[in-house]
Amino acid sequence: MTAAIDFYFDFSSPYGYLAAEQIDDLAARHGRGVAWRPILLGAVFATTGSQPLMNIPLKGDYARRDLAREARLLDLPFQFPKPFPFMSVAACRAFYWTHDQDPGKAVALAKALYREAFAAGQPIDSAESVLTAAGDAGLALEGLAEALTDGAVKARLRQEVDAAIAKGVFGSPFIVIDGEPFWGHDRLMQADRWLERGGW
Amino acid sequence: MTAAIDFYFDFSSPYGYLAAEQIDDLAARHGRGVAWRPILLGAVFATTGSQPLMNIPLKGDYARRDLAREARLLDLPFQFPKPFPFMSVAACRAFYWTHDQDPGKAVALAKALYREAFAAGQPIDSAESVLTAAGDAGLALEGLAEALTDGAVKARLRQEVDAAIAKGVFGSPFIVIDGEPFWGHDRLMQADRWLERGGW
Repeated sequence: MTAAIDFYFDFSSPYGYLAAEQIDDLAARHGRGVAWRPILLGAVFATTGSQPLMNIPLKGDYARRDLAREARLLDLPFQFPKPFPFMSVAACRAFYWTHDQDPGKAVALAKALYREAFAAGQPIDSAESVLTAAGDAGLALEGLAEALTDGAVKARLRQEVDAAIAKGVFGSPFIVIDGEPFWGHDRLMQADRWLERGGW
Repeated sequence: MTAAIDFYFDFSSPYGYLAAEQIDDLAARHGRGVAWRPILLGAVFATTGSQPLMNIPLKGDYARRDLAREARLLDLPFQFPKPFPFMSVAACRAFYWTHDQDPGKAVALAKALYREAFAAGQPIDSAESVLTAAGDAGLALEGLAEALTDGAVKARLRQEVDAAIAKGVFGSPFIVIDGEPFWGHDRLMQADRWLERGGW
């Protein structure tokens, strides 16, 4: 089996950022590609009755500590952008529109946006900030600005989010390997084992 | 530093059961003991606005799959008792009362109760079922039946739960090593690394 593994994430998810820095290498070790699939967790939370992790008493404080600790362990730069949590609609639309032009550039754009937010601590919550980040990284294709308000691009994103929810995706990061779901940055190791053993 | 590590858990937490099967060995590898501290997550959820994992749409289904998968990986028997989720007040009271008589027996009782619930799939939600399980395991000290309705034992349990919440405990399992919190069965590996390196 050499199907790509599905990597679902929200651009405003700090654990998604940590996973995004590792997922391509993890998959490549097992001869797999990665289908990057940004989603909007807000739409998912409407289904599960959840709310952003950082807003939950006790859990939010713990998560801030845990994120910093995980980033230190992985030797990755980490900080929270302001504002946080933020709306990631513009980032998602930029991704899918770019993906339809050039899938490789879309993945590079996703990584650049994540680093802008959680390594540099800069906002990526507006069309303007997404365009600036894409331009700085040399990844802003002609027509991107118009695409962010295009009806077809909006519809495409809604479709992707609906499809993710229909597949049972409810968090970020969320990885699916040959139909087997793994939720959370802390499941990367199990995903690695699953690829190695072909399940257990 | 050779202080015992704190191991907080709810007897109705299946991830707590998986951790309970590993925590003593994990600590012993680093020359540490373990302070077993059963709590009532219901009281914690009142603070965090959470609800039992299994009751949450999508997440509950995922957790059932993830638990079975983790148990297979660890080669541990696993099943859900009926009813589930269940009230673990009687199990907690039995633990703390036994602990005041004989700490070692209390830990053995905790393991026996967890296995009764999640390995054998038998209920441990009533005073009667807790007494039966304790008796079958040869761990029912004289006076245990009376202790389960004793006002001082009730107060002791409330105190333990309040102290845990005051320390920021909000889930099960929840491990604290020299003040550093680790939430979740999936953080056992980080706890192991923390003990090995003395933090990072």
